[in-house]
Amino acid sequence: MPNDNDLLDRYYSVIPAGGIGSRLWPLSRADAPKFLHDLSGSGQSLLRDTWDRLAPLAGEQRIMVVTGRAHRAAVEKQLPALQDANVVLESEPRESTAAIGLAAAILERRQPGVIVGSFAADHVIGEPERFRQTVRQAMVTADAGFITTIGIMPTEPSIGFGYIHAVKPLGVEGAPDACFVDTFVEKPDLPTAEKYLAAGNYMWNAGMFISRADVLLEQIGRSRPELLAGLLELAEAWDTPRRGAVVDQVWPDLEKIAIDYTVAEPSALEGKLAVVPGTFSWDDVGDFASIAKLHSGGRKSELAILGKNARILSDSSSGVVVSHSNRVISLIGVEDIVVVDTPDALLVTTSAHAQRVKAVVDALRLSGSGDVL
Amino acid sequence: MPNDNDLLDRYYSVIPAGGIGSRLWPLSRADAPKFLHDLSGSGQSLLRDTWDRLAPLAGEQRIMVVTGRAHRAAVEKQLPALQDANVVLESEPRESTAAIGLAAAILERRQPGVIVGSFAADHVIGEPERFRQTVRQAMVTADAGFITTIGIMPTEPSIGFGYIHAVKPLGVEGAPDACFVDTFVEKPDLPTAEKYLAAGNYMWNAGMFISRADVLLEQIGRSRPELLAGLLELAEAWDTPRRGAVVDQVWPDLEKIAIDYTVAEPSALEGKLAVVPGTFSWDDVGDFASIAKLHSGGRKSELAILGKNARILSDSSSGVVVSHSNRVISLIGVEDIVVVDTPDALLVTTSAHAQRVKAVVDALRLSGSGDVL
Repeated sequence: MPNDNDLLDRYYSVIPAGGIGSRLWPLSRADAPKFLHDLSGSGQSLLRDTWDRLAPLAGEQRIMVVTGRAHRAAVEKQLPALQDANVVLESEPRESTAAIGLAAAILERRQPGVIVGSFAADHVIGEPERFRQTVRQAMVTADAGFITTIGIMPTEPSIGFGYIHAVKPLGVEGAPDACFVDTFVEKPDLPTAEKYLAAGNYMWNAGMFISRADVLLEQIGRSRPELLAGLLELAEAWDTPRRGAVVDQVWPDLEKIAIDYTVAEPSALEGKLAVVPGTFSWDDVGDFASIAKLHSGGRKSELAILGKNARILSDSSSGVVVSHSNRVISLIGVEDIVVVDTPDALLVTTSAHAQRVKAVVDALRLSGSGDVL
Repeated sequence: MPNDNDLLDRYYSVIPAGGIGSRLWPLSRADAPKFLHDLSGSGQSLLRDTWDRLAPLAGEQRIMVVTGRAHRAAVEKQLPALQDANVVLESEPRESTAAIGLAAAILERRQPGVIVGSFAADHVIGEPERFRQTVRQAMVTADAGFITTIGIMPTEPSIGFGYIHAVKPLGVEGAPDACFVDTFVEKPDLPTAEKYLAAGNYMWNAGMFISRADVLLEQIGRSRPELLAGLLELAEAWDTPRRGAVVDQVWPDLEKIAIDYTVAEPSALEGKLAVVPGTFSWDDVGDFASIAKLHSGGRKSELAILGKNARILSDSSSGVVVSHSNRVISLIGVEDIVVVDTPDALLVTTSAHAQRVKAVVDALRLSGSGDVL
């Protein structure tokens, strides 16, 4: 087992900051995606929370952010310590295999043997030091050649997440909790989720991957050789004057596919996927029901309020109000309510219907109301 | 019995247009009171609906409007045919005895023996010709010396209205439906309201009074001699250059009291109150639940939408949305919902809680948010 410093010198965090977060419309939208909002109550954006959580691992100079061109200014404002060389701009969204794969390919060229950890920009994590301890175990596991994911120990039979099935311990020194993964399963129905919870060795897939860059790229290449070729071409040109021309030529044609399909599922089948269980609290803040729960601190008798200058008069004891206009908001006799008030769009729903917000976004797009998306 | 033309030559309608309609906040408010809104779906304001309903009785030149100074411009815009001599401006609100009493006193000086009919500016009435037939019977009854009210035949055991108890027929020629009233009762509880409905001779008090002006003033004088003295002093000065000075001096000190207490209740006790039952449909549009009912045409499976440029995406089949901003409003999975969206204030409640809106207005006033009232 290599010592910690050696590992950290070869480690790089990657933050793909791409998704809009349609289930959080009209708060999240094309020009104000979810990762730019303070949804944790920390007083800063989720992106900045993510940065602060990762920086102690290998330093601020070893965090790369992959984001859309349109978000460059906002991202750099959130992350003043982000180095130019660590910004990867997408001319258009190409999904997670392209985003994480390009970061890995660039970093591998710069430092062969680099270990890359990829973490969503818009999740909430409760105990950052416990999170980092888990990542350190995952680094060791990754260094041994495994694609390593961090699984979240489920606290309820959620049907909203995919599950990772952990089997026998891996036996890698320095990573006592790491296990082999035999399957990677899609969102289950409730009876199945209950079975998973009872079994104790099913974990939520939080989309965190730690791997040697060369191992990751090789895995991409096995399932998607053309995609890998494109990524390598981009990486070769990246730190040269040809970057712009090659990006314009190659990036738009890359296949849009999630890393779950190109890397996680195939590597599980091949016995090359490992998991380190995360015991920190985690929330993907997937919808307004999550926000209500997060902000009421788990208490069911509190209306969560987001918005610095909120002027709210309410007798509601549950639900969430997001006030991004300066209007007075009055709620009478409505429970588990979700009210999201922005200058050009208003959403009224309930916690129970929060997942249906995405369908509304689709409907608005189809009905010609894309101006508010 | 005098002939119709003689009566109509002595008849004048009075529209007190004063109340804000706090239960309809934030749609109705100090600078946009209820009577200036289109709540009937007619395409024009309730005030204009009221005018159009009364004009065929004795002509547009015989309708007087009592309103606040602040509303003069808006009222005159709604009612271009309103004559200057028929505008009575209140420097500050003094309740219905002062408003209607002053109109009666002015009209009595101009035309002794005048019959005055007073009708709220902000109610919805369905069959205007049937309404006018009822008013014509009330005129005949009033000419015979009675304070005459129009009672609304109840369609349900409402606890939201006061009731008028009709006893034996009056026997006045030309007013076959007129009856004596023995009591005027405050809003009852539900069992009492059910008893009233079953009895068949209890009617809703819609605040409509038709009376000879001299009879009305005499009745005010008997219960409130000082108030009458003030009204007569104002009326004497009204059509002279002294009007402004006398208004400034007298109006602010007039007692604030509803005409129900100074006229209706005492005259019932003295056997001088009559009622003509109204069989037209009537709604006082008292809260958003009323609006939802009115606009869904009684159907329970329709979301009522008010607002010319409303952009609404909703799966709700009941309730009401008032859109007075240009924002996109999206409702998901909320039923019997009330959403009132204005540029500076938003209300979210349910039909069942619509009556509690007034309490919110009071709370906003107390909490220093009077800017949105």
